[in-house]
Parts: sequence; structure tokens; C-alpha cells
Amino acid sequence: MRLLLATRNAKKLVELRRILAESTSVELVGLDDVPPYPEEPETALTFEGNALAKARDGVRHTGLPCVADDSGLTVDALNGMPGVFSARWSGRHGDDAANLALLLGQLGDVGDEDRGGAFVCAAALVFPDGREHVVRGEVRGRVLREPRGVNGFGYDPVFVPDGFEISTAEMSADEKDAISHRGKAFRAVAELLGA
Amino acid sequence: MRLLLATRNAKKLVELRRILAESTSVELVGLDDVPPYPEEPETALTFEGNALAKARDGVRHTGLPCVADDSGLTVDALNGMPGVFSARWSGRHGDDAANLALLLGQLGDVGDEDRGGAFVCAAALVFPDGREHVVRGEVRGRVLREPRGVNGFGYDPVFVPDGFEISTAEMSADEKDAISHRGKAFRAVAELLGA
Repeated sequence: MRLLLATRNAKKLVELRRILAESTSVELVGLDDVPPYPEEPETALTFEGNALAKARDGVRHTGLPCVADDSGLTVDALNGMPGVFSARWSGRHGDDAANLALLLGQLGDVGDEDRGGAFVCAAALVFPDGREHVVRGEVRGRVLREPRGVNGFGYDPVFVPDGFEISTAEMSADEKDAISHRGKAFRAVAELLGA
Repeated sequence: MRLLLATRNAKKLVELRRILAESTSVELVGLDDVPPYPEEPETALTFEGNALAKARDGVRHTGLPCVADDSGLTVDALNGMPGVFSARWSGRHGDDAANLALLLGQLGDVGDEDRGGAFVCAAALVFPDGREHVVRGEVRGRVLREPRGVNGFGYDPVFVPDGFEISTAEMSADEKDAISHRGKAFRAVAELLGA
């Protein structure tokens, strides 16, 4: 079965392909492997809503079964924000440095006991026959006061998962995948695919 | 009875004094009218927690019964944030222009149907004998896409209360006080004082 992962992010493709390879015979393709179609902005206010909208779009435009994900950092002291706004928290879409600096500034007066949060990933799987599934992966942790590490992207340098002493930007890609929100969500998708 | 309003904001003093004058014989004083004491930063994660902490501090340092308030803008699409972070949303405390610009940037992709929110004020009244009260005033409305009006402060230029077509920065002080979150909370305090 050909399956579209609605992303242009090569790392996501590799990660899902590796997870699927363990247990299924799916041929995974990305947005760069199918005829281009207009991609809608992410306007839902939940990770699940954005993932589902992207997966539905993928099915509608390609006729393939489609997986799409949306993820971000939820901080308890901010009532779960940046959340779906994670990539545009500073108002500038995709400006990781500005988003991270803003988050640290906002949490400047917040004590260690209130710096808990989670990386969250929702993954939607939609089939051309209309079947729809949405799964969620989470990794709980806490937000540091200063960035640490150079791996990963986004808020990785300020997030330490529970049970660890290093940030997700100080982990290797394999270490991070093993515990990550996206890894959990993608493994749940693999199970849905009959793995 | 002398009552301390734990603020250096003359407008707040005038507003509460006017509300109290209607019905009680309280002599209201502000922080500039009492011997100075160290003011703690606002570190609670609720309006009620910050108001109560400030009022308790006022009682402890002056021996007077004390009223204190904490207020901000809660936006539905941001899970109730900026909330207690309203005055430091941009990471720069008290920078109204930066806070407002950031909020508009964050809500750039958010549709009209999801721009609801509320101005919220919690007011705490604490007596030297240990009695404590906390009340809350709210005014629901929606967040505009562009600032309008020059009155008020903070997020006033982008907030239109339900039932109105003008922002709270386009209202006169009297118009705003009549419907405002702080007016509601202060009137509730006046009732607690036996008005």
C-alpha cells in the first residue's frame, strides 16, 4: 500500500518509514513525491484538528491514504500554550530563536515547581474510504531557564524530559526518537495500519 | 475605617474611592500614603493568587485592612492566556506596545469566530484579624485585528466588549468604568465592606 505522509520534512519521513518498516509493507511517500497541491494554513485550535485537516487534504488531493501530524510544546504555567501556536509563538512563523526567547522571557518569574510541560504530537490517519483515526503521543518534562544543546529544533534546547537530566537538544536523534511525542504517535499509527 | 488599596496607580485609587464613597465611610489610602515596604513580585499563576498575596503583604506591613487587585486579558484561543502574564506577555514587563503587538501576531491566523476573550480582575480584601475575601469581575468581548482608540492602556485598543462596536480604548473613562472588570470587582469589594 502506498501511504502519503503530508510533510516535506525528510527527517519525519525517515522516522515514520523506519517505524513502519519494522512491521508493515507500506510504501511511504512525502509531499515532494506527489503532484503538488495547495496546502492550507493550520487554523485549528487543537493538534488533533490540524493533523486531521492536513490528512484529509492529502487524501482529497492525491487519493492516497494519508498520515499527517501536528505537534508542539504545552507549558502548564501557560495553560497549555504555546500549544498549536508553537511554531508561531513570537508572531513570526518558524522563527525558532524568537519563539524560544519569548517563552523563556515569559517564564522568567516562574519558579521551578511551575515549569512543567509536555511535547505533544497528534497524528491523523485518513483513508480514501472515509475511515479516520487520530492518535496522540506525549512526553512530559520541564522547561529550563537557559537553552542547552544544539541538536533537534524548536524548543528542544529548553526541554528536559522526566527521568532525564539532559535536554532533548543534548540527545542524539535515536535517543530522542525512542522517547519522543512524535515517535509515540507514529508507533500508534503503525499499530493502526495493522502492524 | 482606613483601608489600604495596594497600588501606586492614582486612577485605581480614584475609581475605588468613588465606588466606596457612594455607600461607605471608608478612608482609602494608597501605597504612596503609607511607609514604604518591599513589594514582592507577582509570581502566582492565578489572578486570585496574586491579588491575595498583595493584600496579605499590605496587611502584614501596615496593619491596615487591605484591598489589592490583579487583572489581565484572557483569550479563548490561547487557553485563557495572556492571563496573569498580561503585563509581561512579550517578556518585557509593562511594555504595552510590545505585548499588544505580540498578541496580534499570535492571533494573526485566528478567525473571527475564535477571537473571544475577557478582561478579568480579581480583587482581594484582607483584614488584620485574618478574614480574607476574593472576588472576580469579568467583561466578555472579542479581540480585534488592529488597534483602535487612544484611551486606556494595555490591551484596551484591541478589545471590544460584547454589546459594543467600539474598543475599550475608544470609550471615555466613565463609560469603561461602568462596564469594566475592575469596576465590577471593586463594586463587589464595596458590598463586602458593608455597603
